[in-house]
Amino acid sequence: MEETSISEKKQSLLDKIQDVSFRRGIAYPTGEIYGGLSGAFDYGPLGTLMRLKLINFWREYFVKDENHFEVEGSLIIPEKVFEASGHLAKFNDPLVQCKSCKSMFRADKIIEDKLDQNADGLSPEELDKIISKNKLKCPSCEGDFMNAREFNLMLKTEVGSVSGNVAYLRPETAQNIFTSFKRISHSMRAKLPFGVAQVGKVYRNEISPRQFIIRVREFKQMELEVFFAEEQLDDPPRFEELADELLPILTREQQAKGIEEPILISAADAVKKKILPNAAMAYYLVKEKILFEEVGVNPELIRFRHMLPKETPHYSGGNFDLEVKLSIGWTEVVGNAFRQQHDLTSHEKASKTKMGIQHTTGNVIPFVIEPSIGVGRTMYCVLESCYRETDDRDWTWFQFPSTIAPYDVQVCPLMKKDGLEEKALEIFEELKSEGFETIFDSSGKIGKRYARSDEIGTPYCVTIDYDTLQDDTVTIRDRDTMEQIRVPQEELPDAMVLLLTGEYGLKELEDLLKESTE
Amino acid sequence: MEETSISEKKQSLLDKIQDVSFRRGIAYPTGEIYGGLSGAFDYGPLGTLMRLKLINFWREYFVKDENHFEVEGSLIIPEKVFEASGHLAKFNDPLVQCKSCKSMFRADKIIEDKLDQNADGLSPEELDKIISKNKLKCPSCEGDFMNAREFNLMLKTEVGSVSGNVAYLRPETAQNIFTSFKRISHSMRAKLPFGVAQVGKVYRNEISPRQFIIRVREFKQMELEVFFAEEQLDDPPRFEELADELLPILTREQQAKGIEEPILISAADAVKKKILPNAAMAYYLVKEKILFEEVGVNPELIRFRHMLPKETPHYSGGNFDLEVKLSIGWTEVVGNAFRQQHDLTSHEKASKTKMGIQHTTGNVIPFVIEPSIGVGRTMYCVLESCYRETDDRDWTWFQFPSTIAPYDVQVCPLMKKDGLEEKALEIFEELKSEGFETIFDSSGKIGKRYARSDEIGTPYCVTIDYDTLQDDTVTIRDRDTMEQIRVPQEELPDAMVLLLTGEYGLKELEDLLKESTE
Repeated sequence: MEETSISEKKQSLLDKIQDVSFRRGIAYPTGEIYGGLSGAFDYGPLGTLMRLKLINFWREYFVKDENHFEVEGSLIIPEKVFEASGHLAKFNDPLVQCKSCKSMFRADKIIEDKLDQNADGLSPEELDKIISKNKLKCPSCEGDFMNAREFNLMLKTEVGSVSGNVAYLRPETAQNIFTSFKRISHSMRAKLPFGVAQVGKVYRNEISPRQFIIRVREFKQMELEVFFAEEQLDDPPRFEELADELLPILTREQQAKGIEEPILISAADAVKKKILPNAAMAYYLVKEKILFEEVGVNPELIRFRHMLPKETPHYSGGNFDLEVKLSIGWTEVVGNAFRQQHDLTSHEKASKTKMGIQHTTGNVIPFVIEPSIGVGRTMYCVLESCYRETDDRDWTWFQFPSTIAPYDVQVCPLMKKDGLEEKALEIFEELKSEGFETIFDSSGKIGKRYARSDEIGTPYCVTIDYDTLQDDTVTIRDRDTMEQIRVPQEELPDAMVLLLTGEYGLKELEDLLKESTE
Repeated sequence: MEETSISEKKQSLLDKIQDVSFRRGIAYPTGEIYGGLSGAFDYGPLGTLMRLKLINFWREYFVKDENHFEVEGSLIIPEKVFEASGHLAKFNDPLVQCKSCKSMFRADKIIEDKLDQNADGLSPEELDKIISKNKLKCPSCEGDFMNAREFNLMLKTEVGSVSGNVAYLRPETAQNIFTSFKRISHSMRAKLPFGVAQVGKVYRNEISPRQFIIRVREFKQMELEVFFAEEQLDDPPRFEELADELLPILTREQQAKGIEEPILISAADAVKKKILPNAAMAYYLVKEKILFEEVGVNPELIRFRHMLPKETPHYSGGNFDLEVKLSIGWTEVVGNAFRQQHDLTSHEKASKTKMGIQHTTGNVIPFVIEPSIGVGRTMYCVLESCYRETDDRDWTWFQFPSTIAPYDVQVCPLMKKDGLEEKALEIFEELKSEGFETIFDSSGKIGKRYARSDEIGTPYCVTIDYDTLQDDTVTIRDRDTMEQIRVPQEELPDAMVLLLTGEYGLKELEDLLKESTE
């Protein structure tokens, strides 16, 4: 057997991104000094800034722009809610255990990994058949498997001082919204259609957490439940604004043929040809595509996959996952579910609370479209899409758009002495007060500081040097081109706006400044 | 026994606020249609808007303004962390159970309620003595109590598919920060002093949740851990900016004398006279006082109570709770702990990870000041402080400052017809695009709409009437005075800024507009 030295061993892209994330405080394991907890991560200062920008972008574009309502529900929810929703009976993954080493695996993933075939949604018996027919063995010890069984993915706890008062950590944010539907619609005097948004943590007791922040046990969702009267599903507000946008869709027919690349079709045509269940779904798919592009995910790596019948709950009118082609393969990042009337009617039945709402056609139970975006997975897609190793520099860097870069601008004095640091701090405070996400760095050689700034994807560096003290000009360095221009200190805030919005590049800005002084 | 009809029965202030909160979608029980879960609440659309404003205010004032770092940790944390932190052994409340009806109570609260004496921090044996000496009985059935025992307040869960892998829902956000201290300080190249902030959910298995959103099992904290070298504790950055501000402090000596009203003393004097442990603590107490005033809590209802020795952990250098005088009595809303080096040294010992950081005096373990603000409780204080029943109107209303009011402005067409609604929608969109939190209401009589707007504390209503269609002016109605002025539509966004920042009242604004047209 050949030996491979560590330096020769090619690191996967995921490993590289995990390394820089650990090192630069983007994300790292929870309780790491005690060995961590599988599938749990803390977001550090840079990761938190990115998440706040992402959530704010979503809040503006998916909530406020649509006049939807936002709520914030408890993460701990009583058992009865999940009896009614079906999670207690059906929110399961198939589990197989090795007879020899007792390791546990997801049966469907064992089949997918070893046979490269989709085994989503198969019953334990069907999975057992495939495993035994193909003589699949334990990946850890080559032992035989016991029979597969269903494993419920909800995390359980007990509240109160008497035992037996069971509650669950919610597996999706949606149930808070459905169970409070009357409260929300009444208190806001809401008329159909309207949406209710929620950002918050959810929990899934994954059998084998893996792939850094991709398959974890605690994660944050940005979710919408949009309620429509049936006849509004094909005529949602503002559809015409986005009807001509192209959507990359992978149909069930293409999947049956083994095709992986989506077709491109306009939202309007996808509805007309019944590729999508309705225009309401189409509208939100377009918005998601736009959000992903805006935060730096290469749009050519996105597809909306029509989930196969066995992957789709019986009550659904069609689910479409937004998947991103990552180094680890196509990965679900957004779930779009057409939940129809299922949840409200289930809760109406179980709780004996009327869930109808007054509408022009009478008292109706609305239909639900649910676009549910994973915050951590979206962030990982951005990290992979923006990661750069280029010949022109000795360091890796992130080409983040300013919509998601942790910092907009880094301020550096060339030296710490001769009043340069004080001047730089003054400019730092000025940029901060104008609302720019700003970081100050005065330690080490300037080249090192540019490298550190690039490594975390800060679009611009502003440097204060001896000329600044003479003529009140500073240099702006562009992360992507590494070019620099000088601008008057008083023009800096306006210049940053023009640069960060992408209206001007460094060159155009220099020309503009020349014109204005001529 | 006299009979009291329901209408005669005086509703407590807490009940009134709970009623309007349920009805108007501020907060309501989680899973209410199934009877709810004791101590768990969902925040509805209005409550969520208020919380977002509160958190943003804190983020600007306590985090960004101080150049602190913000992180977001996992809520599920492995057991070893809480072994080291002491929570597993010591995060307990004393529990007593009734021998007859089996009801459970907090032993110290039974004593406080029945004897009006503080029983915080007493051992089960001490509590048993007081209970038996005073012959205290079960409040539900008058039965006798069993002996008191310690009850751990952490909520437990098991992760993974093999049983026995115990983790806890964090009881405070702090431990994520302490266990990741090296990651955070290294990745940000942080130099002492620096602070790490976190907003997030925490869990306490309260024995008897009560008082609406005050004593709950799941709540949100806005927490800071600020790290200082020992010699910096009395010389924190920017202390001089706040040194002369007055702090309402209740000393241990006053408490011994049964005094409830605090003394007023400047931050600088409180440090000089050793009433506070150090200037670093004093600085954050002032900031809290300012935050509470800004979001609408009457500053005369606030005190910083020096916790008594039995209420204070052994490692603390002095804890000061910000308490608010509510209708239910003085209530802890913020905890300020001087945790000294306790947490970092405990984790260094337990994890064998060096926690020192480079400083001018060498490698040091920093000292910690921890201001920890309860989001729900702060919100409740605002609700009580701003609640109004006045003779000049038939409805209750909230006199919220614009820093926390769910909406800044409501837009109403006088009628739905004759193009008034279209014009109003145009103005609604314009105000929204300028960044104002705006609500549209076109249903019912205009008086009803003003009442609804007042009830949720919206500072201003903008009404579009027939004159608007003629001369492009709109009326602005002030919630507090119910007065109205007309302003040109094009001046509306600037007018709203002047009004909402409090720079101008309605009258001053009217004069300003007259001047500018003369």
